[in-house]
Amino acid sequence: MAEGLTPRGQDFSRWYNEVVRKAQLADYAPVRGCMVIRPYGYALWENIREELDERFKETGHENAYFPLFIPISFLEKEAEHVEGFSPELAVVTHGGGKELEESLAVRPTSEAVIGPMYARWIQSYRDLPVLINQWANVVRWEMRPRLFLRTTEFLWQEGHTAHATRREAEAEIQRMLDVYADFAENMAAIPVFKGRKSKRETFPGAAATYSIEAMMGDGRALQAATSHDFGQDFARAFDITFQDADGELRHCWTTSWGLSTRFIGAIVMVHGDDRGLILPPRLAPIQVVIVPIWKDEEARSAVLEAVRKIEAELDGLSVKVDDRENFTPGYKFNEWELRGAPLRIEIGPRDVAARQAVLARRDVPGREGKEIVPLDNLSDEVRRTLDAIQQALYQRAQQFRDSRTAEPEDYAAFTDAVAEGFARAWWCGGAACEQKVKDETTATIRCIPFEQPAAGGKCIVCGKSAEQQVIFARAY
Amino acid sequence: MAEGLTPRGQDFSRWYNEVVRKAQLADYAPVRGCMVIRPYGYALWENIREELDERFKETGHENAYFPLFIPISFLEKEAEHVEGFSPELAVVTHGGGKELEESLAVRPTSEAVIGPMYARWIQSYRDLPVLINQWANVVRWEMRPRLFLRTTEFLWQEGHTAHATRREAEAEIQRMLDVYADFAENMAAIPVFKGRKSKRETFPGAAATYSIEAMMGDGRALQAATSHDFGQDFARAFDITFQDADGELRHCWTTSWGLSTRFIGAIVMVHGDDRGLILPPRLAPIQVVIVPIWKDEEARSAVLEAVRKIEAELDGLSVKVDDRENFTPGYKFNEWELRGAPLRIEIGPRDVAARQAVLARRDVPGREGKEIVPLDNLSDEVRRTLDAIQQALYQRAQQFRDSRTAEPEDYAAFTDAVAEGFARAWWCGGAACEQKVKDETTATIRCIPFEQPAAGGKCIVCGKSAEQQVIFARAY
Repeated sequence: MAEGLTPRGQDFSRWYNEVVRKAQLADYAPVRGCMVIRPYGYALWENIREELDERFKETGHENAYFPLFIPISFLEKEAEHVEGFSPELAVVTHGGGKELEESLAVRPTSEAVIGPMYARWIQSYRDLPVLINQWANVVRWEMRPRLFLRTTEFLWQEGHTAHATRREAEAEIQRMLDVYADFAENMAAIPVFKGRKSKRETFPGAAATYSIEAMMGDGRALQAATSHDFGQDFARAFDITFQDADGELRHCWTTSWGLSTRFIGAIVMVHGDDRGLILPPRLAPIQVVIVPIWKDEEARSAVLEAVRKIEAELDGLSVKVDDRENFTPGYKFNEWELRGAPLRIEIGPRDVAARQAVLARRDVPGREGKEIVPLDNLSDEVRRTLDAIQQALYQRAQQFRDSRTAEPEDYAAFTDAVAEGFARAWWCGGAACEQKVKDETTATIRCIPFEQPAAGGKCIVCGKSAEQQVIFARAY
Repeated sequence: MAEGLTPRGQDFSRWYNEVVRKAQLADYAPVRGCMVIRPYGYALWENIREELDERFKETGHENAYFPLFIPISFLEKEAEHVEGFSPELAVVTHGGGKELEESLAVRPTSEAVIGPMYARWIQSYRDLPVLINQWANVVRWEMRPRLFLRTTEFLWQEGHTAHATRREAEAEIQRMLDVYADFAENMAAIPVFKGRKSKRETFPGAAATYSIEAMMGDGRALQAATSHDFGQDFARAFDITFQDADGELRHCWTTSWGLSTRFIGAIVMVHGDDRGLILPPRLAPIQVVIVPIWKDEEARSAVLEAVRKIEAELDGLSVKVDDRENFTPGYKFNEWELRGAPLRIEIGPRDVAARQAVLARRDVPGREGKEIVPLDNLSDEVRRTLDAIQQALYQRAQQFRDSRTAEPEDYAAFTDAVAEGFARAWWCGGAACEQKVKDETTATIRCIPFEQPAAGGKCIVCGKSAEQQVIFARAY
């Protein structure tokens, strides 16, 4: 266990804050509710961004940039939208030394400033679909800030698309949800449930919201990404119309979808342990850390020479050689375990003489995760081991999630289940039952999974007949 | 000349606005002073960002992210800094539905919010240097907005570094100025003067500001990037100290340096012509556009087959095949000339039969810039021609700048010179002479170039002895 790190089992929330700060992912800013993303955390975000951006471009999207400021009157064009976001707005009332005639909201999301542009750009069915994504900062005033999870300002991407038909819009919404799920599972090693949100949890102004939901290391849920179906509501509010091939003027069907720096919080909470972070190899800013070990000057140069050769052979991987003086190997081991580098290579004079090195897996700490590997095989073995770590992290997260996902038969078992993890249970669809659960357990409906049993059942709350199983959980 | 495009010589400013909008680089936002960067313009920014980011990382810098909001009291810690930026601030007075106890500025630049973090992170000389860059949006209230050149919100990067010694800080400032100059000249094909700013033009709070200055197509100057020397002033204001190897507590030496989306305006204004944009091949989002030409269905499939082969051979280049129906080849030629794609490939049925294609250079419009190339040599010839275009754009810009840079002998010749371009002239260093030039000609001192004649001269304004030549120009 890392020195000074609160054990996860003792106080998960405290463990989380300590890991994020000690691993130098982020720090509290001297501005209320805001965070500073430090270079190591930002490098992780850059890797997330690069992977997602590639997937967005492969699915036909382009990036653009829209203004930070949104006149309040724009937000008011869609009634539910402004109602949902008003309590969270940061408002600019003065600019250039004068009080403004109309106050400007700092964007909490960009539908209301993108809508008028789409209305201007889209004339004909030939202009459709419009498939645009934006990487940006957004602001939602936060009373109980937590690094990455809830901060007044955060970074995200928001896709905004406009289509000629409902079918195309719906296909887009599912496509992007699949992109998110693929990214979460294959890159971040985080298994997710895909599903629709209940009306209560739907994005303000959307006809439907879909999400991917992941289980954190304490059994709570985190919404990792969302995809929204606006039907034609926003197109009506912002007058986004097109002339169809038959000459008719129609409203577009629009969508939006987003993933934020919150996702970094999920990576920390899914994979970390009592020693600190564990980063999935496919997203880790440093995939392999090499710690050379020496006592005297002669050994030093022989070891460093071997290290340079290893580094060259690991071309294409992100490798860090920690050759700092004045720090012991043990100190370095602890530090890189805290910071979650997936694989460590240790090499000392005797290893050099024996033409070998030690590989130490971060996901299997201690002796059990160590392997002595001949230098001749090292490059292959490192790559193989990184793949194995990636798979192992996913399997461990999935096993944990399965072990904490119950299908309770009655309400008593249900309340026990949501105290520990996810409860997959029948729900009649009634807002009253949803509210009762929230009031009594603080759990909410995370999603209505796409995969449903063939037959119906009885609502876990009221016992009336129910057509859908939903996932209840306490959520971040 | 593109249809509906005002000729440059007739009204440069109007030409600029039309090109930026018609080429779909950017559009005015429905928010005062703000712009929307459209996908084509944003793709250009992404290329700029990627090139710079690589150079920043090669010189040892890491990216991070600091908060958008800066408490006004932070800005006030450095007197000149707050005085310089106060008139341009956007101010958040309400958050989360309540009036704030302390108003927050939307960052006009981030020294004042980064300073307190560096004060927290830096303890010992071992923590130095800190070499961090941030890609972000910033806001400076703008009364006379122009797309890319002056907008209330713009995108930029800002490097912020802290060093143990004056010498290291000064080396950093010059290193980054060199990075900018190298980028401008070798990637954007824009020749620049490197030099120091006069006190009047120095960044608020800086001990010295250095810049690269470019000449636009109308002879005016544009400051393309800056690098600031803060000495120990900001370190004193924000208490950024370190314990040196001798145990003494010392203040750091800090710097900052930045380049913004304004640079896109420079690319437009340096290279464009009466047909529209001309993008330098090394930054162009679309380097090669292929326009297949056919009349009947049979020809179409033969031509498209040849086009697919060409596209495959141009692997590694950014190629767009414009196979849109319902648009004539002539329409497409005009459109891609307007949008500045450096090289066009035209291919029709007779070309396919003759195993050839036509290359048309954007920088040499009309027959003179066309070349018939055998398909067997096409890939090499395209790459060679793109290089030739890159070089030609740079040479043309340099020749233009040289032809408009005068070394006037007297004040009358000087005023003529700054009406047309740059005047390189002796300056006594007096603020009164600088002010007189500004009042009478609107020209300002763009920079005091590093390269200076061996002997001194006489001030172009007052005739007193002068030790430095400076570049005067009217500026964007």
